[in-house]
Amino acid sequence: MKGKLYGIGTGPGDPELLTIKAVKAIEKCGVIAVPKTDNGERTAFSIVEKYLEGKVILECPFTMDKDITKRKESRQRAADKIIQFLNKGKDLAFVTLGDPTTYSTYMYVHEIIVNKGFDAEIVPGITSYTAAAAVLGIALCEGGETLTLIPARHNDNVDELLNYPGNKVIMKSGDNLHQVLKNLKERGYGNRTKIACRVSMDGQCLYTSIEDYENSCKKSPAAGYFSLAIVKEKTQKEKE
Amino acid sequence: MKGKLYGIGTGPGDPELLTIKAVKAIEKCGVIAVPKTDNGERTAFSIVEKYLEGKVILECPFTMDKDITKRKESRQRAADKIIQFLNKGKDLAFVTLGDPTTYSTYMYVHEIIVNKGFDAEIVPGITSYTAAAAVLGIALCEGGETLTLIPARHNDNVDELLNYPGNKVIMKSGDNLHQVLKNLKERGYGNRTKIACRVSMDGQCLYTSIEDYENSCKKSPAAGYFSLAIVKEKTQKEKE
Repeated sequence: MKGKLYGIGTGPGDPELLTIKAVKAIEKCGVIAVPKTDNGERTAFSIVEKYLEGKVILECPFTMDKDITKRKESRQRAADKIIQFLNKGKDLAFVTLGDPTTYSTYMYVHEIIVNKGFDAEIVPGITSYTAAAAVLGIALCEGGETLTLIPARHNDNVDELLNYPGNKVIMKSGDNLHQVLKNLKERGYGNRTKIACRVSMDGQCLYTSIEDYENSCKKSPAAGYFSLAIVKEKTQKEKE
Repeated sequence: MKGKLYGIGTGPGDPELLTIKAVKAIEKCGVIAVPKTDNGERTAFSIVEKYLEGKVILECPFTMDKDITKRKESRQRAADKIIQFLNKGKDLAFVTLGDPTTYSTYMYVHEIIVNKGFDAEIVPGITSYTAAAAVLGIALCEGGETLTLIPARHNDNVDELLNYPGNKVIMKSGDNLHQVLKNLKERGYGNRTKIACRVSMDGQCLYTSIEDYENSCKKSPAAGYFSLAIVKEKTQKEKE
């Protein structure tokens, strides 16, 4: 009897944003696969840490290297390690920040493992942008509005993507954030853009406009991978 | 001392997709506001039912009438009822299907109540489309891909919106679903479109292509409000 793989979204950071289903899946697995980034961060691990006593921890380093071959190799190495446990009949939970189907490395591993004939189940997680909208107290989308997720870091054409009509979430902007915000401001979106850094994590910062962000960041430059911007096409006043 | 309002996303249907935070907020509130649709459905209520013993249930009918004045009146009536409890110092949980910031009537009520000076907190929920991607075993978006949510029911220009580049989720299509799928098929997206009906609810149905949906629906026409389509711009093969 082969083991089963669970791909589990941990939500954005606050352990209380785990679903009941995620906790139950972690509890029944003896082995927990934990992604580790190039700089040694294990964010998903720290979110589920209180459920891990007595479990085997399988660290999976994933590189964000620009070389696609290196990225693929790190995914394959993770899949190979996981398969060793599944072949021994062990159920395994792979924890991943946010939601597994939304810009997550998990899906590459999932695909390798499913294609080898193993059973795998995905447990959805709270996404960073829904958590950001919640803590900012704003709707992401209402009525007939569209919402487009734009990953800024991987796109050379971010400027073009900002032309999309409708509401937008600019994600994974990293070092590009300042440039993206500058462009948004030039297009007149300064007061229609809210920014959230490290939502529901230690050091969470919220900004109600681009100007607010710029003024506050003189003191403490935030940016980074865990920052996102929510851009509304119309303000509430304009809708009425 | 005034009471506090919690706007709580219940997730798409499976009670195990509630977050720990949602359960804790429901448990600490004595009053639970439950939206009811024109045809008497209380979907959010049924998801959290096991946590409601001994609590005061406040039914809030919301109309989906095309007349905006009627919709606004029903929101105002709900807000007025909620404010009565908050004024008595009672904490109140408003439960809403999916996520409160994503196409939810809750946000209108939230705004009315916050503008009156009351304290309100939003607890994010698992969205139907992340749950659909999970159960279909597919990524919504990877790497540099964009993802656009398109609410079909409220848009006369759905056909135009389907021209958006990138991946798409067609939501809330209702009776429009058949027409939307016909248009997608004509554009060559027949095998790049997956359809999920009633995700994580009783009667969940999944279709791996538009053709699959059409063939299966001859037997059991699904469609309806709780159906959505995920459209991928590129197949996995094309990406490699």
